[in-house]
Amino acid sequence: MTTRGFPEAEFRARTAKAQEEMTALGIAALLLTTEPEVRYFTGFLTRFWESPTRPWFMIVPARGDPIAVIPSIGAHLMRSTWITDIRAWRSPDYVDDGISLLARTLAEVVPEDESVGVPSGAETHLRMPLADWHALRHRLGNRRVRDDGDILRRLRMVKSETEIGKIAAACAVADRAFARVPEIARPGTPLSEVFRRFQMLCLEDGADWVPYLAGAAAPGGYGDVISPATDRPLEIGDVLMLDTGLVRDGYFCDFDRNFAIGPPSAAVRDAHSRLVDAAAAAFDLARPGATAADLFHAMDGIVTAGAGGSDTGRLGHGLGMQLTEPPSLIPADRTVLVPGMVLTLEPGIDLGSGRILVHEEDIVIREGGAEWLSTPSGAEMRVIGA
Amino acid sequence: MTTRGFPEAEFRARTAKAQEEMTALGIAALLLTTEPEVRYFTGFLTRFWESPTRPWFMIVPARGDPIAVIPSIGAHLMRSTWITDIRAWRSPDYVDDGISLLARTLAEVVPEDESVGVPSGAETHLRMPLADWHALRHRLGNRRVRDDGDILRRLRMVKSETEIGKIAAACAVADRAFARVPEIARPGTPLSEVFRRFQMLCLEDGADWVPYLAGAAAPGGYGDVISPATDRPLEIGDVLMLDTGLVRDGYFCDFDRNFAIGPPSAAVRDAHSRLVDAAAAAFDLARPGATAADLFHAMDGIVTAGAGGSDTGRLGHGLGMQLTEPPSLIPADRTVLVPGMVLTLEPGIDLGSGRILVHEEDIVIREGGAEWLSTPSGAEMRVIGA
Repeated sequence: MTTRGFPEAEFRARTAKAQEEMTALGIAALLLTTEPEVRYFTGFLTRFWESPTRPWFMIVPARGDPIAVIPSIGAHLMRSTWITDIRAWRSPDYVDDGISLLARTLAEVVPEDESVGVPSGAETHLRMPLADWHALRHRLGNRRVRDDGDILRRLRMVKSETEIGKIAAACAVADRAFARVPEIARPGTPLSEVFRRFQMLCLEDGADWVPYLAGAAAPGGYGDVISPATDRPLEIGDVLMLDTGLVRDGYFCDFDRNFAIGPPSAAVRDAHSRLVDAAAAAFDLARPGATAADLFHAMDGIVTAGAGGSDTGRLGHGLGMQLTEPPSLIPADRTVLVPGMVLTLEPGIDLGSGRILVHEEDIVIREGGAEWLSTPSGAEMRVIGA
Repeated sequence: MTTRGFPEAEFRARTAKAQEEMTALGIAALLLTTEPEVRYFTGFLTRFWESPTRPWFMIVPARGDPIAVIPSIGAHLMRSTWITDIRAWRSPDYVDDGISLLARTLAEVVPEDESVGVPSGAETHLRMPLADWHALRHRLGNRRVRDDGDILRRLRMVKSETEIGKIAAACAVADRAFARVPEIARPGTPLSEVFRRFQMLCLEDGADWVPYLAGAAAPGGYGDVISPATDRPLEIGDVLMLDTGLVRDGYFCDFDRNFAIGPPSAAVRDAHSRLVDAAAAAFDLARPGATAADLFHAMDGIVTAGAGGSDTGRLGHGLGMQLTEPPSLIPADRTVLVPGMVLTLEPGIDLGSGRILVHEEDIVIREGGAEWLSTPSGAEMRVIGA
């Protein structure tokens, strides 16, 4: 078991790095609105974000400590973090849901004619009502709004040892749960029951919660990897795939396992073996200096003979506080790998007739190369109920 | 067990109602980007939204069927819905992540100088990168962008019988799980273990997944209701509160239960009894023609003697496809209740010294008054390990 949370020094280091980049880019303050962005600088961990009602704001000024501008319902929990400047209002407020408080606070830390940076690029969004956003911009007067220069993307992409430990702990939970799938999946078990029982295994084996479970079961391969479970019972000849993103102490794992219900066909065996080969090829290449695109091509060369990918759009991605994070393993992503990056390797094979197989592992980039965070699958697909 | 999903007629009826309001407001098409908005018109149900990487777009034109503009990874699942016009691109694409496809599609259904409506008010956000939003607006040329006139809010606030059945089914699962809490919570059990085991009970009793669980345990009341669990063991004298938003077939319940670990103090007993009285007072008042504010005042009169609320900001809210939905039970919310609205009644009492107690039930508004969806708690707090 790893220790929960982070020492204050970790948040101070993240803040200092962001401030260094902000100064270089001429950004007077970052304005953050989403769960991982707020948590990254504070450690504010709650499932309350499930409620879309209230906006939450975090300001990281170019100098000084971050400032929380949040609904009063969250002030008690925010006071347990290292953040001391907490400004709260009673939300929901239909006339002014924190906007004047936020504008006043920004005005304190952003001089006139200087810029507020807001994450605006790929994989980001602004978690506040559009009408409030327009009202805020109006109140900022001649303070400018710009993108954040991808500061959040760059910072979050490289994990600390403490973060890596938490992702590894989440992976270990999923490893244990996957090992127990034969306890809960047999010919005749409805897929919906497998999903339910698998989430229970994840919890029993140490998950705090299970935000993501996808999967499928169908003869000789499945149609997609994002559908919810149906009540169709498992049958001999099916391939069962379970893909979980469980959370432990605020960090995700994200990998899958395939199981043959009864002996797999030669085509399924071969496909699975090639998927494992593809992940291994990317693993061997994954070291500082290689790019995200390099890993894509290493896998794509094996799974499509270099055709350039499939409808899933990518063959892996970053992960951490979110199920999926930058970079993307696609030809266009030239991100250079550095130690501390945590990635999934997620090759897929098209078996024809609308059937696919997808395999996924989690790795971390180290000075000397990659390390597995998930315990890698063997080439042979595990067989249930043979 | 209720049947999964909805008949096509339900989606056609939702679309027709939206189109009627769009025509009245002069909106040529709605542009929708979030999970519940997309699902409301399509039935597209997947946990894949957990990944923030890819944007998803749904267009509801003023005439004709909705159009999905989505990443190709979702096309297979979208084809299983009633939607036939599905336009997909391979995402992520760092140069053009669906924006030109979306702009072209909007140009087909929105004449020049007419308006695209985007949900912009309270509890909404735009789930796409801000930079892409600016690029889209530029490409729309002299087509205007405006708010959606709260069409989505008004439509989604009133549930169909099928929707009510799904929320009731979710409530029944939570009822069963709460009844079993004495199986998993005893003096000495760490709160984190109670959280883990309670989620397992929810799954075992029929939840598809458990997106939300909050709670607390502390002597004579707790500090807040949004914190994650600590490893502190339950002790005699604690009040344990569990508040769950579990999902069945895409619909939430949202209610809590309080448990006394050992005999409760007179103050705790009295507070719990008043909370139950407050919920009952709101229930008695909850009928067509009453307002959200009326329910607030009915409860506030009992829990604060009419002081006007607390830091939690409201005393209940709507629920359905999301854990919390409009309206809010606050003095400023003049929403008139109509049959089909599903609400939580969520009074809280301040016990002083930073301790609170919160109680929550789920109800539906019917022609003749309210009906309980959760099985209402008695005035006596349940005692564990006495």
